[in-house]
Amino acid sequence: MNPKLIDGKATAADITSEIKKRVSELVQAGHPPPGITVLLIGDRTDSATYVSMKQRACQDIGFVSNIIKYPKDVDEDQIVKKLNELNSDPLVHGILVQLPLPPHLDEKRITGLISIEKDVDGFHVINMGKLAMKGHEPNTVPCTPKGCLELLKRYSIPISGKNAVVLGRSNIVGIPMALLLLNENATVTICHSKTENIPEICRTADILVAAIGRAQYVKRDWIKPGATIIDVGMNSIPDATKKSGYRLVGDVDPDAYDVAGMYTPVPGGVGPMTVAMLMQNTLNSALKWYATTAHE
Amino acid sequence: MNPKLIDGKATAADITSEIKKRVSELVQAGHPPPGITVLLIGDRTDSATYVSMKQRACQDIGFVSNIIKYPKDVDEDQIVKKLNELNSDPLVHGILVQLPLPPHLDEKRITGLISIEKDVDGFHVINMGKLAMKGHEPNTVPCTPKGCLELLKRYSIPISGKNAVVLGRSNIVGIPMALLLLNENATVTICHSKTENIPEICRTADILVAAIGRAQYVKRDWIKPGATIIDVGMNSIPDATKKSGYRLVGDVDPDAYDVAGMYTPVPGGVGPMTVAMLMQNTLNSALKWYATTAHE
Repeated sequence: MNPKLIDGKATAADITSEIKKRVSELVQAGHPPPGITVLLIGDRTDSATYVSMKQRACQDIGFVSNIIKYPKDVDEDQIVKKLNELNSDPLVHGILVQLPLPPHLDEKRITGLISIEKDVDGFHVINMGKLAMKGHEPNTVPCTPKGCLELLKRYSIPISGKNAVVLGRSNIVGIPMALLLLNENATVTICHSKTENIPEICRTADILVAAIGRAQYVKRDWIKPGATIIDVGMNSIPDATKKSGYRLVGDVDPDAYDVAGMYTPVPGGVGPMTVAMLMQNTLNSALKWYATTAHE
Repeated sequence: MNPKLIDGKATAADITSEIKKRVSELVQAGHPPPGITVLLIGDRTDSATYVSMKQRACQDIGFVSNIIKYPKDVDEDQIVKKLNELNSDPLVHGILVQLPLPPHLDEKRITGLISIEKDVDGFHVINMGKLAMKGHEPNTVPCTPKGCLELLKRYSIPISGKNAVVLGRSNIVGIPMALLLLNENATVTICHSKTENIPEICRTADILVAAIGRAQYVKRDWIKPGATIIDVGMNSIPDATKKSGYRLVGDVDPDAYDVAGMYTPVPGGVGPMTVAMLMQNTLNSALKWYATTAHE
């Protein structure tokens, strides 16, 4: 076993088996199983990969899962109509629109239509506001940053007072990740495409979260010796040795791993944790629904 | 004139006179003047200072302003009742609860009761969520960080790609300031009481925003030569030479000023801008109300 490896796959499997057990108890107690519906729009390879990982996890865990696929030129009204249907469907506890959307669709409008109770992605503006403000508790925390934090915690990596550098400022990963780390008392720096001195800033990081979406962008000499690397990147690069013709790599060059104290690999790091956190958010959503409808 | 000085007092006066002119036009057109009500709870010297500055500004500008004072042991229900009244008062366009509150009061509940249309402080969770998320536009931006950004812009201080360090992570200043700077493409680091190496981090700042609430905490050798210092601090310290027995100082030691490129003094820097931005937010709120009630 590699002592530096943060094994997201194994950790996600542990979490998944806890959820699976809980679902089985709930179903035995007479509840409908937690249900999740995913809207997959367009033909991005990465999106299809994420969605099929999610579906496999749902099936394994005992959730009812549906994927509804739309072509990349789908009319926005069709998506809106479907979301309204799903919002009022009592057997659907989580609704997920796989991002990014094709450019003609209004992401803000579409994600804003998902009822906050079924927003298992945690992308609703109220959830983000609560995450940003001391003294507030978000209903749902976005899955990827939640999974990253869970890995740091399960591997007992010190966060409080440490320098955390987040590469990327997306609504989905960078911003909520920065806010979560700040809530854990890290000193947080957020870098992005306009940052002038990324390598220098990375070298100050005790915890480096790479979520910038560029294949093997972070180099070995950007890493502070002993730092923890959390690699959120999942980039397709051509690979003639693979049957598919491509393979997935992270935002961090694997050459950097031996400088680091610990690191998440790609694949098998953050990816499986994102899926596990989605399962956890969906279970939580279903549990709240059972409580309000007094099924128990 | 000191070429390094960012004159918040003069800038606020310019903004205020623009607002005053607009208010006078609105009243001549038959509208009621914009109205603001401030709840002042307890006997903190700094809170009383802020509130009286706000009231003077309102009177000068032609707003109708009311201050309602409560003792520091006031019952929460009394505040709740008053806020409900004010929410439905058509002559009140801005409601402000001066923070911090005495510890027995639930700040989250109280600020959450102000209707989002009258939240001229911009502390509502939806406003914060929108500020945090790309593609969303907050209804109101909190006054102090908005004023800091306005000063940077009016003094043509480059922000994009620069290193901005924010000391403090309050809901009122630190977090929204960090988000505003990020939206302007700065690389942002957020420091706080748990940060282990504040002086070292400050030395990387092209723009340093001090909002940590400690008198003259930031020292001369923490400043990168040529950096811009925005001092949000307003701390009372004993001063026997003053009639009041105290004077207000910032979070930055004035010894640091000559290392800096530019700086905001205390008083006369951020303070007056906070008040001017509150006036601007209230005017905007009144303008929206006039538009929806078709008074024009």
